[in-house]
Amino acid sequence: MAKRSLALSKAYTLLEPGPVVLVTTAHKGRTNIMTLSWHCMMEFEPPLVGFVMSNRNDSFDLLKGSRECVINIPTRVLAKQVVGVGNSHGRKLDKFAAFGLTAKSAAHVKAPLIDECYANLECKVVDTRLVNQYCFFILEVIKAWIDPGQKNPLTLHHRGKGIFMVAGKTIKLPSRMK
Amino acid sequence: MAKRSLALSKAYTLLEPGPVVLVTTAHKGRTNIMTLSWHCMMEFEPPLVGFVMSNRNDSFDLLKGSRECVINIPTRVLAKQVVGVGNSHGRKLDKFAAFGLTAKSAAHVKAPLIDECYANLECKVVDTRLVNQYCFFILEVIKAWIDPGQKNPLTLHHRGKGIFMVAGKTIKLPSRMK
Repeated sequence: MAKRSLALSKAYTLLEPGPVVLVTTAHKGRTNIMTLSWHCMMEFEPPLVGFVMSNRNDSFDLLKGSRECVINIPTRVLAKQVVGVGNSHGRKLDKFAAFGLTAKSAAHVKAPLIDECYANLECKVVDTRLVNQYCFFILEVIKAWIDPGQKNPLTLHHRGKGIFMVAGKTIKLPSRMK
Repeated sequence: MAKRSLALSKAYTLLEPGPVVLVTTAHKGRTNIMTLSWHCMMEFEPPLVGFVMSNRNDSFDLLKGSRECVINIPTRVLAKQVVGVGNSHGRKLDKFAAFGLTAKSAAHVKAPLIDECYANLECKVVDTRLVNQYCFFILEVIKAWIDPGQKNPLTLHHRGKGIFMVAGKTIKLPSRMK
């Protein structure tokens, strides 16, 4: 997918609506993908994101070891992969091969971009104070990529147990909010 | 709006999809409402939620003082109110009167429920470690209310500057994910 760089000041517009994401990690020759919905914007610029990654996931160790990841944002065409990744374990399975996803080199981190996702955010861990108690990492987005062709991406929003709301219509109201 | 109590174990299904919310606070005789999108589930049960509430908002002081709030979830019919609340200041304005919203008593907190919202989560602040640096509060949901008539609520998902994605279709995939 041909992507362009997105200004970091606009990264919040991708995560603020609450899409399910695929987080990729890489450390010491191992790579993994995990499905995650518990994330939150924390600052506009530089963009900070917080997310909960359970320590029962193999990705937790890769993230803790490398302090880097990519937050990839899938759309409806990837719904089966989103659920498949969420239901499998990376220690034994090459999820890229198993789910037909393409790993592409990132610009600033070792974790790969998932090419089929419409946007990718390269991140560095900047605060681990809440990791022990809540598995909550705070990350800075250092590079953002987007497919310029998708203006209203059909993002997936998890309601639990494999039920997803798919992004619907867009409305615009006069607002001074950022 | 006639609501029923919702099991706390299901509270995550309301916030995980990332809807914009209206947070109500009350302290020392003052009440306020604020629009907020930077929230994140942090635990299933008891349900923990993290959110960023900027210290430039009057609601910040009410939340810090009372350590309580209600997270109210609006739908499309309240889009104008969501933006209106987001663009106004509570220190001088009674937002309930100004935007035609109905304050209803909560069961366990002093902050009111917004009756027109399809769901309401009564919350207590449980962790303020990240408030000074990020204005990030961690809250426990202690009571949840929902309109049982709305199965696929038309929640609003902010993409920045008054642009909202409105919840679209629902799809269900076989999954072992919670």
